[in-house]
Amino acid sequence: MRDMTPTDRKMRLCAFWFPPGSHPGGWRMPDAIPGSESSFAAFVEVAQMAERGRMDAIFFADSVAVQPVDLIAEGDPAAGKVYRGAAGLEPMSLLPALAAVTTRIGLIATGTTTYNAPYHIARRFATLDQISGGRGGWNLVTSQTESEAQNFGFDRHMEHDDRYDRANEFFDVVAGLWDSWADAAMVHDKATAQCFDPAKVRILNHDGRHFKVRGPLNVLRSPQGRPIVVQAGASGPGKALAARIADCVFSAQATLAEARQFADEIRATAITFGRRPEHLRIMPGIIPVLGRTDAEAQELLEELRANITDEQALRSLYRVAGGLDLRKYPLDGPLPDLPRSNGAQGRQRLLIGMARKDGLTLRQAARRFAEGQAHQLVCGSAATVADVMQDWFEQGACDGFCVMPIYYPRGIRDIVDLLIPELRRRGLFRTEYEGRTLRDNLGLPRPASRFDA
Amino acid sequence: MRDMTPTDRKMRLCAFWFPPGSHPGGWRMPDAIPGSESSFAAFVEVAQMAERGRMDAIFFADSVAVQPVDLIAEGDPAAGKVYRGAAGLEPMSLLPALAAVTTRIGLIATGTTTYNAPYHIARRFATLDQISGGRGGWNLVTSQTESEAQNFGFDRHMEHDDRYDRANEFFDVVAGLWDSWADAAMVHDKATAQCFDPAKVRILNHDGRHFKVRGPLNVLRSPQGRPIVVQAGASGPGKALAARIADCVFSAQATLAEARQFADEIRATAITFGRRPEHLRIMPGIIPVLGRTDAEAQELLEELRANITDEQALRSLYRVAGGLDLRKYPLDGPLPDLPRSNGAQGRQRLLIGMARKDGLTLRQAARRFAEGQAHQLVCGSAATVADVMQDWFEQGACDGFCVMPIYYPRGIRDIVDLLIPELRRRGLFRTEYEGRTLRDNLGLPRPASRFDA
Repeated sequence: MRDMTPTDRKMRLCAFWFPPGSHPGGWRMPDAIPGSESSFAAFVEVAQMAERGRMDAIFFADSVAVQPVDLIAEGDPAAGKVYRGAAGLEPMSLLPALAAVTTRIGLIATGTTTYNAPYHIARRFATLDQISGGRGGWNLVTSQTESEAQNFGFDRHMEHDDRYDRANEFFDVVAGLWDSWADAAMVHDKATAQCFDPAKVRILNHDGRHFKVRGPLNVLRSPQGRPIVVQAGASGPGKALAARIADCVFSAQATLAEARQFADEIRATAITFGRRPEHLRIMPGIIPVLGRTDAEAQELLEELRANITDEQALRSLYRVAGGLDLRKYPLDGPLPDLPRSNGAQGRQRLLIGMARKDGLTLRQAARRFAEGQAHQLVCGSAATVADVMQDWFEQGACDGFCVMPIYYPRGIRDIVDLLIPELRRRGLFRTEYEGRTLRDNLGLPRPASRFDA
Repeated sequence: MRDMTPTDRKMRLCAFWFPPGSHPGGWRMPDAIPGSESSFAAFVEVAQMAERGRMDAIFFADSVAVQPVDLIAEGDPAAGKVYRGAAGLEPMSLLPALAAVTTRIGLIATGTTTYNAPYHIARRFATLDQISGGRGGWNLVTSQTESEAQNFGFDRHMEHDDRYDRANEFFDVVAGLWDSWADAAMVHDKATAQCFDPAKVRILNHDGRHFKVRGPLNVLRSPQGRPIVVQAGASGPGKALAARIADCVFSAQATLAEARQFADEIRATAITFGRRPEHLRIMPGIIPVLGRTDAEAQELLEELRANITDEQALRSLYRVAGGLDLRKYPLDGPLPDLPRSNGAQGRQRLLIGMARKDGLTLRQAARRFAEGQAHQLVCGSAATVADVMQDWFEQGACDGFCVMPIYYPRGIRDIVDLLIPELRRRGLFRTEYEGRTLRDNLGLPRPASRFDA
């Protein structure tokens, strides 16, 4: 199922920036600069550094709620300790601003299909694609927590399968709106007063189970035809959605075997949807803890781990605990049986699998999960980390990685200055951008519009 | 009701950029550069030029629909001729991008309360305020057209008074969310692992007629405390809303007497809401058609007018026609009686008043309305235009103006290079920005948060 011969196939690297950094102990490091989650200047620095490294894109996760809200409501004094990114900047607003201060790097943000209207989402990402000259990407998610539901008029969270049904239809509306205008619809003929050719704009008239949207979109067809679409669901419906619609699939896998199985499944499912599997870029998350030597990296990792509090570790399980209050269980007892999560089902399965396989206590499972939210953490010199990445890449487990910087500013700097040069030495990563758009750099074709049919 | 003595009171000037320009005949001028409505580079040029002129802010209107959609649906070949801005860029995405390439100018965009969720709006404008270092502003509107309703699942448009009821509650939720965090809520104490002080974040728990929103917002309190809020409604409920909540009121008036009456009414109503009238900035729209001499300006205006087609003029009445298809009436007959508009009621009254007062035919009324949508058009040398502005300003009709460039790039260039120097010579306008934030430059105090009470 490879799309290129091993010699010319290059790894795709996306910087997954989760401020103030992916490692929960990172912000307490002596050289960590605090406040990066609310500092535009810090976001600019991270994006420009990733661009200097010629990374394909920078990516931001999102949640439409303050996550420790229940603890705040309970008046728990630990509320201020458990979640380092309680407040930050809204990613869809951040991307256009970063577009203005970068020239080549792709810009991907999360937008939930659960609490948005398709017209707004289609419009914002089309605008991003115009502003950035074709570097926009949308990570299509379904919202996962009750605290998000409660910011949008609902007492409870929408059921998992309903959310995915809505997400599928949401995408169809957005994709339809993105094709509202033919590429050459604008005429601007001063002599005849003709602004556009009305035969080259189409009314969508979507009328489905979840949405009724007339269209057309009031943004022209964008440089990429469509912004890149990313999906990261790990549940059954999540994987099916990814296989049907995603250009990029972001995933979380702990082992090469699991990652290969995941990639094979997604590619096989894509074929059943009439897609070419080489039109998907599968990129699992990886948290590199880097040093000049393995020993130096190991020392850094121990320091990072010592910075995680038990409260913080336990809290990291909140999203996957299925509503169970884990604070009531002994930390050194086994991970209790978890009710089926209505939120992050795929992630819950990863946690339970990990805890069972290695016989972890609650404390151990929480600390392990806190560290990477089931993403793979690799510690060592650039050569050691590159060995793992090369192995995954060459064994067909992925097309590249979502690389997660541990803290600001060290995490992204070490990726760009230590890891990427090593990948380049091995001929695995580009030295210069291949194209102008994110789609070009990912090696994905510009989709035809309905007008070309 | 003046807030300062005439000698130290300065005019506020906002660039109201409605691409490709406010004059409907502008885009057909020989020196007009086409496509500015979809060109980020053009937006950057306009914003930077306005900043060079030390204007308070740049402002963008918005509509969440392609406006000639009914004509497109009918297959009318004129659809491509009537509306020069059928497609463009989404303003809330545009502002953060402009924030990154400017340093002092305020950035105001329209966000509808009719088809948005307050959590999203609160979050996006708070983020804009963070990214721009305190230069963000939100023009709170209610949507006015059926074509917008149909992009959000509705067959018909929400009733006028319902929309304003919703808009009032929408604002209260947004303002409450903006006060989620105390100014100094973040601690970032590495030693104790304390990220924030949970006593300095509050849950809103709003439960009203239109919205149920728990909060808190996941963006910190912004540099301005709250982004600037703009309101432009001209109907009764619109004026009441403006008087209750607006920092800036954008209005459309044809004569000094009407403008004065409007300003007096808004200020008097503000007092009944317990506000200080000097905390409102009232800024009517003005379309300057400038030349080095009055004769040169008059020649330009005639050229602009010759560029307006009858179709375009007639179409400009669509929003205020109350559903009547004006294409069925003779162009040289009188303006027919219009059914009460469920859209722009205030603007409808302005049109009818104008047509009755001057005994206009349908064609004349349409052409006059097309030219400025009831905003004042002033034609002449910089001295001539400045005379009118000075008169309005000194007679208490306003605190400044929303200046509407006629086309790209000439409109904004003439404002900055011809008009503003003349206003400065008269001591009416600043030579340098007074402060760092939009609020500072407008001379408005930073609002106290609920935490200061």
